[in-house]
Amino acid sequence: LSSGMFVHVRQMLHHMACADVAFLLESSPTKTRMVLWQMVDHDQQGEILEELPEDVKDSLISQMSAESLASATAGMDTDDLAYILRSLPDSVYQEVLQSMDTQDRHRVEQALSYPDDTAGSLMNTDTVAIRPDISVDVILRYLRIRGELPEATDTLYVVDKRDKLLGGVAITTLLTCDPNITIKKLMNQELEAIPVDMEDSKVSMLFERHDWVSAPVIDNDGKLLGRITIDDVVDVIREDAEHSMLSMAGMEDDVDTFGPVFKSTLRRSLWLTVNLFAALLAASVSSMFEGTLEQFATIAILMTIVPSMGGVAGNQTLALVIRGLALGHIGDSNARWLIGKELAIGFLNGLIWALLIFVVVWLWKGEVSFAILISGAMLVNLTVAGLAGAAIPLLLKKLNIDPALAGGMALTTITDVIGLFAFLGLATLVLL
Amino acid sequence: LSSGMFVHVRQMLHHMACADVAFLLESSPTKTRMVLWQMVDHDQQGEILEELPEDVKDSLISQMSAESLASATAGMDTDDLAYILRSLPDSVYQEVLQSMDTQDRHRVEQALSYPDDTAGSLMNTDTVAIRPDISVDVILRYLRIRGELPEATDTLYVVDKRDKLLGGVAITTLLTCDPNITIKKLMNQELEAIPVDMEDSKVSMLFERHDWVSAPVIDNDGKLLGRITIDDVVDVIREDAEHSMLSMAGMEDDVDTFGPVFKSTLRRSLWLTVNLFAALLAASVSSMFEGTLEQFATIAILMTIVPSMGGVAGNQTLALVIRGLALGHIGDSNARWLIGKELAIGFLNGLIWALLIFVVVWLWKGEVSFAILISGAMLVNLTVAGLAGAAIPLLLKKLNIDPALAGGMALTTITDVIGLFAFLGLATLVLL
Repeated sequence: LSSGMFVHVRQMLHHMACADVAFLLESSPTKTRMVLWQMVDHDQQGEILEELPEDVKDSLISQMSAESLASATAGMDTDDLAYILRSLPDSVYQEVLQSMDTQDRHRVEQALSYPDDTAGSLMNTDTVAIRPDISVDVILRYLRIRGELPEATDTLYVVDKRDKLLGGVAITTLLTCDPNITIKKLMNQELEAIPVDMEDSKVSMLFERHDWVSAPVIDNDGKLLGRITIDDVVDVIREDAEHSMLSMAGMEDDVDTFGPVFKSTLRRSLWLTVNLFAALLAASVSSMFEGTLEQFATIAILMTIVPSMGGVAGNQTLALVIRGLALGHIGDSNARWLIGKELAIGFLNGLIWALLIFVVVWLWKGEVSFAILISGAMLVNLTVAGLAGAAIPLLLKKLNIDPALAGGMALTTITDVIGLFAFLGLATLVLL
Repeated sequence: LSSGMFVHVRQMLHHMACADVAFLLESSPTKTRMVLWQMVDHDQQGEILEELPEDVKDSLISQMSAESLASATAGMDTDDLAYILRSLPDSVYQEVLQSMDTQDRHRVEQALSYPDDTAGSLMNTDTVAIRPDISVDVILRYLRIRGELPEATDTLYVVDKRDKLLGGVAITTLLTCDPNITIKKLMNQELEAIPVDMEDSKVSMLFERHDWVSAPVIDNDGKLLGRITIDDVVDVIREDAEHSMLSMAGMEDDVDTFGPVFKSTLRRSLWLTVNLFAALLAASVSSMFEGTLEQFATIAILMTIVPSMGGVAGNQTLALVIRGLALGHIGDSNARWLIGKELAIGFLNGLIWALLIFVVVWLWKGEVSFAILISGAMLVNLTVAGLAGAAIPLLLKKLNIDPALAGGMALTTITDVIGLFAFLGLATLVLL
């Protein structure tokens, strides 16, 4: 690319599948990405935008003019289009809306009215709805006249005159059943529908549990509004998983691994600020024992061990509990039981590691007093780590704070402070 | 349940969907889970087992007799059945195989021959294959005689006489096209097929990128072996994500959040063992500076701050790079560039935080010398943290070690050792 073979690259891009171009853009540094984007065919741009993660999409959209955006978004799914419009500045937004025909504009304005992170924002309006009182034969003739069906259509939805959802008929059933039967007799009346205001993480849980390919979306009156397809759900699952992982390391999701250095540095500073306060808090705990420290260099050397072990043990519990909360396995009914269990594991861990560190320090330093005080502190800190690792995410969840984001820092602060306090406090008692 | 209303609970379980029973079992403590499992209808057990995560499944299977296993597994998908058989002790395994009819046994033995974690282990053999030279009309009549199609069938596969895959026809196309056309003219010849030995994480990447509902699996000669459906792929995506998250906290995946205390404690001990060695290594770095420490209690108090900041900064980089590797965004072509970028962020971070800690320590301790040495150490450590956070996972990947599992510990050890070494080394130079 750097050697200037633009024509060649443009041709290559032209022949690649949109999903592959999106993947290439996502894996490129910012500058290369912009150059590549300029070379993409205009009628491919819409489909490629659909495939990109939010952060990368935003950076590309911000570089485009209103006209090219309007043409790029022409054939898009409603949910993706609504996403893009949501992220535009107001003036461009209006221009893009103006350039659409009335039907499309209405459809998009409807989609924009659903809050982000609900079933409505994942929904497409490309459902094929049929009436209950006609025969399969008529439906088959209708479909032949209608032509191509929307992607990932596995079910036709049966509605009454007021668009109320009555049930569904699988496409495979249409192919294998007797053509003279009426839809009413054939349809699955127990078809589960998704309320339009359901949270998107709940939607993905239902899809996973029931192995759905698509599911209908209804409003409060049971009226069919659209459908959600598995490809959008897979994105939600992936995003939720990444969110947990990244926020445990103190970062927002949708961080662009290949974004510019300066922006990346700024984005990571919040967590480091919080950690600095936590570390200073821990240091000020040590400073309460300044008298003890001056006399015993050994203590200074050993004192990092107990907090560090507590941090690791607590984070293990934390990761499990956060996953359990994310999957919906942990609720009010078993929360107390789980805290008890983790406290027990913490205590058991504490006994094991206290014994081990006792032997190690005794052999290393040759003084039994150091060994006793470090193992005592270890027992206290690992027990507290188990308790805190389970209780913190549950508490944060109750307070409506994301446990994956704030949990790790809260936990490390507690295990550092308790660890230092127990170790240095015992040292003051035993040695002075 | 504890009040002994067994009949009532049994009836409730009978009326619940299998997926919901599985969810209930997964969210229950071990004892309750065993009691509930006894109450589940025998003909539902197979379907429920299919829905459970591996750890829970294993614990239930180990309690079942060969006969009840054979009857429970009767109607299962090939891939799930193969999984269960794989985890059985040899004697039970043979008994279960004996109890099947010849065709089923052959099918399962075939499935068992594919290694775990490849496309073969995800594959089902329930494909519907057709010939290229017949008309749509004939196919439609055939399907009507055949009756029900396998779940999540969205494509019929076109094969030649030797079962070689030629292409595919979407079911929706069959419904909307002219019935007199031949399959040959209709079929999608560019249908991408999955080689049976492809890694399962690659399979999930392809499904995500192309929004597939199902995809055909072929052997080395292009012969159609079966198909993979999106529901199994969603499980792979979920498992991979959980694996990353849990192994960053030093735990195996398939850890059962509700398993027994003692087993859980043992499982978590490996990581704590490693961490203890890391902490002792850090402590032995401090002990090299024992002379310095004895004279300056302040140093002992401040010395935990630099390693702690390095740990957080490095883990942020680590999480991003591990995600990038998992999504396939990072390869040989951009690895060097990424290391450079993370090094730059590390240095920039180092400057910012060195300045900040300089001011804080100066104000707190009133001596400029302490402030200088802690900010110098901070700059060094955060730069190293950026470099290590990017380089460690890439290096581990090259060595075929899972970066999510070993990365965090390797990183923390490096940032602890470098942090202490820089801080105490500078202290020795500046203050003595």
